[in-house]
Amino acid sequence: MNTTRRNFIKKTGLAGMAGLSFPVAGMANSKISTMDNLKKERPKILFFDVNETLLDLTTMKESVGKALNGKSELLPLWFTTMLQYSLVATAGNHYEDFGEIGAATLMMVAANNNIKLSRDAAKEAISPILSLPPHPEVKDALGRLKEDGYRLVSITNSSNAAVEKQFTNAGLLDFFEERLSIEDLGKYKPHADTYNWAARKMGVKPGEAMLIAAHGWDVAGALWAGWRAAFISRPGQQQYPLAPSPEIAAADLKIISEKLIALEK
Amino acid sequence: MNTTRRNFIKKTGLAGMAGLSFPVAGMANSKISTMDNLKKERPKILFFDVNETLLDLTTMKESVGKALNGKSELLPLWFTTMLQYSLVATAGNHYEDFGEIGAATLMMVAANNNIKLSRDAAKEAISPILSLPPHPEVKDALGRLKEDGYRLVSITNSSNAAVEKQFTNAGLLDFFEERLSIEDLGKYKPHADTYNWAARKMGVKPGEAMLIAAHGWDVAGALWAGWRAAFISRPGQQQYPLAPSPEIAAADLKIISEKLIALEK
Repeated sequence: MNTTRRNFIKKTGLAGMAGLSFPVAGMANSKISTMDNLKKERPKILFFDVNETLLDLTTMKESVGKALNGKSELLPLWFTTMLQYSLVATAGNHYEDFGEIGAATLMMVAANNNIKLSRDAAKEAISPILSLPPHPEVKDALGRLKEDGYRLVSITNSSNAAVEKQFTNAGLLDFFEERLSIEDLGKYKPHADTYNWAARKMGVKPGEAMLIAAHGWDVAGALWAGWRAAFISRPGQQQYPLAPSPEIAAADLKIISEKLIALEK
Repeated sequence: MNTTRRNFIKKTGLAGMAGLSFPVAGMANSKISTMDNLKKERPKILFFDVNETLLDLTTMKESVGKALNGKSELLPLWFTTMLQYSLVATAGNHYEDFGEIGAATLMMVAANNNIKLSRDAAKEAISPILSLPPHPEVKDALGRLKEDGYRLVSITNSSNAAVEKQFTNAGLLDFFEERLSIEDLGKYKPHADTYNWAARKMGVKPGEAMLIAAHGWDVAGALWAGWRAAFISRPGQQQYPLAPSPEIAAADLKIISEKLIALEK
C-alpha cells in the first residue's frame, strides 16, 4: 500500500507540494486520502520513535548480515522476531534489555538456518545499533520543527543508556527536550501503558500528543491510545491494515515537518 | 541448539530410549541436560498448543507461498509477523481474530515485496489452516496419554470456532476434555493471563499444569507463569535463549508421551 502511495506521490509530484492541504475527492487512489487527514490544531508535543524512524539501520544490517553468513534475506525475519520477542517479554512480565532480546533472537534465526552463533558474536553483530547515522533529511527537519516552536521528545524501545549513545553518535542529542525509554516501565511499545505514561510524564493529554514513527505497529499503538500519529513509510515498512489511519503518511520526515509547520500557531 | 540436540539424539539413538530416565553427568553436550529435567510428579493436566504443535502447517504454507508468487522463503517472515501483531493487538488492547491478523500481516509482507494481494485473496490463502492434518505421531501419542489416565486440554490462539473446525477435520476432537481459545480473554499467548486463566478454569494450580508446545515463546510464557513445560522441536522452531529450560525437549510428541507415561502414577 505504501509502495502504491509512494509511487503515486512520485508520479504526480505531490511530494513537492508537501505542506499544502488539498482535496482528494474524485481521486482514483483512495489510499492517498490519509494525506488529507491532518487536523488544524498543532499537536502540543511531537514524540519521535528512534530506530528506523530517525536513524538509518543500514550499517547494523550489514554486520548482522555477515553474522548470518551473508544471508541478508534473513534480516527482516530477525528484526521481526526481535520485535515479536520484545512483546513476548512484555506479555510475560519478563522484561529484558532490547539489545539482549536482539542477540537472543539473532541466535534463534541463525540456528534455524544451521548457522552457529555464540551470544557474544550475536551481540557484536548488533552493536552498530549504537552508532547509526540519522536518515539524510532528519537533522534539518528536526531543526525546523524546533525553530518553529514545536516541543520534541523521543520515545524508544532502546534502553536509556543505548539511546543516549545513539543520539550522541548521531548528533541528535540537542534537538530533544526529553529522551524517554520504555525501560522505565519494563513494557515495550506498542503497549498502551507506554503511550499513557509518556503523555502523563510530559504533562499532555493523549489527544495533544503526536507520534511520528516508521513502524505500523507503533502508529497503531499510539492511535489506539488516543494519540495523533504520522507514519514515515521508510522502505520495507507498512501500515497495519487493522489500525486506524494516521493523519499523515509520507516518505520522509521533511514532508511531515513541512505539513506540521504549515499548521497555524 | 535444537538442531544440535536433534542431531545428538539421532547419532546416539537416544530417541529409541525415550521414556527411560538416564544420568547425563559427564556428557559432553550440555544441551542434552534438558532431557533430564523431568520432575517425578505427574502433571495434573497436559495443555496442548495446536498449530504446529499438533497440526502440520505444510498445506497452508503451500497456499500462502503461492499467494506470495512462489516466494516461499517469505513464509517464516509472514508467520513471525502474524505472531508479532497478535501481541501488538494484545499490548494495545485491540483484539482481532487470529485469522484477520494473519490476513492483514500477509498483505503487509506481500506489499513489502511488491506483490499485490487483496484482503480476500489473503484470507483465501490462509484458509487451509482449518483443514490441516495432524503430525504423523500425534493421534497415537494422544491416545496413549489418555489411556494412561492423563487429562488432555487444548489451548490455542485460534478462535473457538476455528479450533473446533480444525479438530473436526483432523480427527482430534475426542482426545480433549476441553478446548480453550484465548478468544475468551481477548489476549494472545504468551500473555501471563492466558495461562493463569486456563489453569483456574480447569481447577489446577500453575505448578500442576504442563504446556506441550512447539514454540519457544509459548514455552517461555508458560514457564514464566509457573507452569511446567515440554518443547517439541519441530523443524524451524527454537527455544528462547532468555527463558528457563522446559523439563522435556524432544523432536516429536511420541518421545514426550513416552517420558510422561513412564512417570509413576
